[in-house]
Amino acid sequence: MATTLVAVPERYPEDPLAHLPCSRIWEYGKGQVIYNQHQPSSSIYLVIDGAVKVCRTADDGRQVIVDIYHTDEFFGECALLGATGRDEQAVALKNTRVMSWTCPELEEIVMRRPRLAVALLQILIQRSIEFEQRIESLSLDNIERRLARTLIRFSERLGQKAEDGSVEMMALTHELLSQYVGTSREIITHYMNQFRRGGYLRYSRKGILLYGDAMRDWLRQQAA
Amino acid sequence: MATTLVAVPERYPEDPLAHLPCSRIWEYGKGQVIYNQHQPSSSIYLVIDGAVKVCRTADDGRQVIVDIYHTDEFFGECALLGATGRDEQAVALKNTRVMSWTCPELEEIVMRRPRLAVALLQILIQRSIEFEQRIESLSLDNIERRLARTLIRFSERLGQKAEDGSVEMMALTHELLSQYVGTSREIITHYMNQFRRGGYLRYSRKGILLYGDAMRDWLRQQAA
Repeated sequence: MATTLVAVPERYPEDPLAHLPCSRIWEYGKGQVIYNQHQPSSSIYLVIDGAVKVCRTADDGRQVIVDIYHTDEFFGECALLGATGRDEQAVALKNTRVMSWTCPELEEIVMRRPRLAVALLQILIQRSIEFEQRIESLSLDNIERRLARTLIRFSERLGQKAEDGSVEMMALTHELLSQYVGTSREIITHYMNQFRRGGYLRYSRKGILLYGDAMRDWLRQQAA
Repeated sequence: MATTLVAVPERYPEDPLAHLPCSRIWEYGKGQVIYNQHQPSSSIYLVIDGAVKVCRTADDGRQVIVDIYHTDEFFGECALLGATGRDEQAVALKNTRVMSWTCPELEEIVMRRPRLAVALLQILIQRSIEFEQRIESLSLDNIERRLARTLIRFSERLGQKAEDGSVEMMALTHELLSQYVGTSREIITHYMNQFRRGGYLRYSRKGILLYGDAMRDWLRQQAA
C-alpha cells in the first residue's frame, strides 16, 4: 500500500496521507452500498482505488449527488459529528477499495500528529469553497451553464488529460448528471447532445471525452 | 472577554473557544468591509458581537450570500488555504467586533492544542452538511419552499425563541434574502407578503418574527 500513500494532491499544502497509518482494506463491488440510513457508519473513509458516489435522498425519494470521490480522497467525514448515514448514502460507482478509521481512532491519531488535523482542515475548507461555487451556480446559472460547469469540474477532478488538451473521464450516466445539476435526465440528454453536436465533448458507455478549453470559452462568451 | 469565551454551541462536542487564546479585538461599523478581493485577508475571524455577511460576487456583479455569522462563530477560514478574498467578501451587517488569528498563529496553537483542530473540524463538517442541505433545496425546491427553509434556518441560527414558540431575529432585507435564495428581490417580496398574510411571520425594518412550527407544518403539508 506504500505507493498509494505517497501521492500528494497538489492543491493541499499538507498531505493527510503522510500522517495516517494504514488500516484494513475493504472491497465493494459496483453498486454496493458502503453506508446509508439503514447501515450507518461511524468511520471516515479513504478511497484506495475505484470511485464512490455520496448522495442525499429527499423526503419524496429524489436524489441529489453530493459528490464523487476517487483515489486518495476522503468521504464519510460527518461520522466525526456522529451524523453519518443520517441523510447520506455512499455507493461504489465501480469496484472500489477503501480504508477506514473510526472516529476514536482518528482523534487518537490527531492527538499524536496534529499536522493530520491541519491537512484534514485544508481538505474540508477546499470542499467548502467547491460547495460555495456550486451554490453560486445553482443560484445564478441556467441548466445549460450548470451542466457545463459540472462537466468541467468532474473532468478536473476525475479526468486524465490527453496530449491534445482533451480530458478523458469515467462514464457518468445522464441520470447521475441530472442528480448533480438538479434537473431531469431528459433535459441533461438534450444538452449533452447539444454539447456533442457543438464539438465540446464526445461520450459513450465507456467514458466522456471533454474539450475543456472550448467549454470554458463557451462559458465566457455566454457571460459576455 | 472571559464571558464570551465560555459559551459552548451545543451542537459541537468540542468547543474551539476553550482552546483559543484571546487576540486583539477589531471593530467594524455597519456596512464596513472586513475583507474582499481588493483587501484580501490572511486571518481566520471569530465574531465577538454583531453579525457578518460573507458573500461571493459573480463575473456579472450579482451576489450570492454564503452565510451570515454571529457571536462565537468563525469566518474567513479559507485563509488557511491561502485563498481568502479571492472570490469572497465579508461585510459587517451591524456594528461588529471580531478577533482574528493569522494562519501561522492558528497552526502554532493547533500544534500545541490538537483538540482545537478537532473542534474546528467539527465546525467545518457541520457547515458542509448545511451546504449540502442548501444544495438539495436549490436542486429540488421551488422558490417558495427555498425561502421557507431559509427563514427557518436563519431563525434557528440567529433568532431568539419567545414564550409562544415564535422566534425573533434581526431584520433581513428582501435583497439579502434574494441573494441567499437565488432569485430577485421582487419575488422575495411577493412570497414574504404571502407568508405574512398566511400568519407564518411578521416583519418590519426592526426584525422578523417567525412562527417556525407553523412554517415547518406548511413545508410538510406541501410535500405530502
